[in-house]
Amino acid sequence: MPENKQISRLLHYRVILNRLYDLGFETVFSYGLAKEAGVSPEQVRKDFSKFGIKGNKKGGYNIQELLESIGAIFHKDEQRKVILIGTGNLGTALINYKGFAKNMINIAAAFDIDPVKYRKKIDIPVYPMEKLKEVVDSLEVKTAIVAIPQQVAQEVCTQLVDSGITGILNFTPAILKVPENVYVYNIQICNALESLIYKTIDSNR
Amino acid sequence: MPENKQISRLLHYRVILNRLYDLGFETVFSYGLAKEAGVSPEQVRKDFSKFGIKGNKKGGYNIQELLESIGAIFHKDEQRKVILIGTGNLGTALINYKGFAKNMINIAAAFDIDPVKYRKKIDIPVYPMEKLKEVVDSLEVKTAIVAIPQQVAQEVCTQLVDSGITGILNFTPAILKVPENVYVYNIQICNALESLIYKTIDSNR
Repeated sequence: MPENKQISRLLHYRVILNRLYDLGFETVFSYGLAKEAGVSPEQVRKDFSKFGIKGNKKGGYNIQELLESIGAIFHKDEQRKVILIGTGNLGTALINYKGFAKNMINIAAAFDIDPVKYRKKIDIPVYPMEKLKEVVDSLEVKTAIVAIPQQVAQEVCTQLVDSGITGILNFTPAILKVPENVYVYNIQICNALESLIYKTIDSNR
Repeated sequence: MPENKQISRLLHYRVILNRLYDLGFETVFSYGLAKEAGVSPEQVRKDFSKFGIKGNKKGGYNIQELLESIGAIFHKDEQRKVILIGTGNLGTALINYKGFAKNMINIAAAFDIDPVKYRKKIDIPVYPMEKLKEVVDSLEVKTAIVAIPQQVAQEVCTQLVDSGITGILNFTPAILKVPENVYVYNIQICNALESLIYKTIDSNR
């Protein structure tokens, strides 16, 4: 299985390729893509090879074909369902986020401790936490977004794992303990902002 | 100046220390903290030393003192102002996010192309983009959160840099081109989710 860094780089290449495609380019050489991505051309070729993507070295890679190959790797040809835990401000913003639909990601259901409170203004079904296992099973979903208060994050995470979730996108500052077969991706907004503020303050002193 | 990774690790240690403190612990040894953080004890000591943090090796580090030292490094003893560009779903969620206030981060002003539309339901002043330079100057702010559509991200980024912003938290999938003295931190929610889905799908096949 490819490493985390290779997966991240491939997704990063895709962002660049989409931009080049929008700008009207049809082909790209590995050194051009490498320069944009801030890696070596060897790295680009190695990453592509790892995922079984082949290119015409003489004329460069066809951008549209590359995007299709990368799309297929990430199963973008099919709807991919995820669930969301927490329908507060952030959760609701994620439900309304248009970028997911564009990438064939579908938040199929949401969960909250107080579903009645939110049901009215939300377009997707919201369930109480007690329904978690049942809904995860019936939707056959493996990935969950966690947008809840830090204090209950570990407890909910354990419930998710017990219900069969193996991928968690964690928006809380909590460091989640999970079994080895479960993947966690942390998006720590506060830490990101603090590290930026630190750099901007100190570079101006 | 410390490297990005050192800053990230220090912020990561802080999350762990806060949890230990909440659990009632008073001291921690570098190997305990290292184990929780997934690094070596030497790394912890090296990182602390880089930021001038000293510990009592015999009895371990006092957690409260450590948290105060780390807080001082990130200037948490003072309010830190940032601005927000874009008051759509995500922007509004960020304005209402309680974690910022807890960390002494204050979204002091927001900007939108259509400020009238949002002014009513938002607690902070919302300005049109034309006021950017004036507000950045008067607030003496250096950091901006960007939560706008990808298509206008580079244009807005250039306006931010021209107005004196040197730190950008970028929530768009765009790869922003900035001068060398400007720091960008990308939070690519879609890519994060795709990489998780990829791993959960393939580990189940």
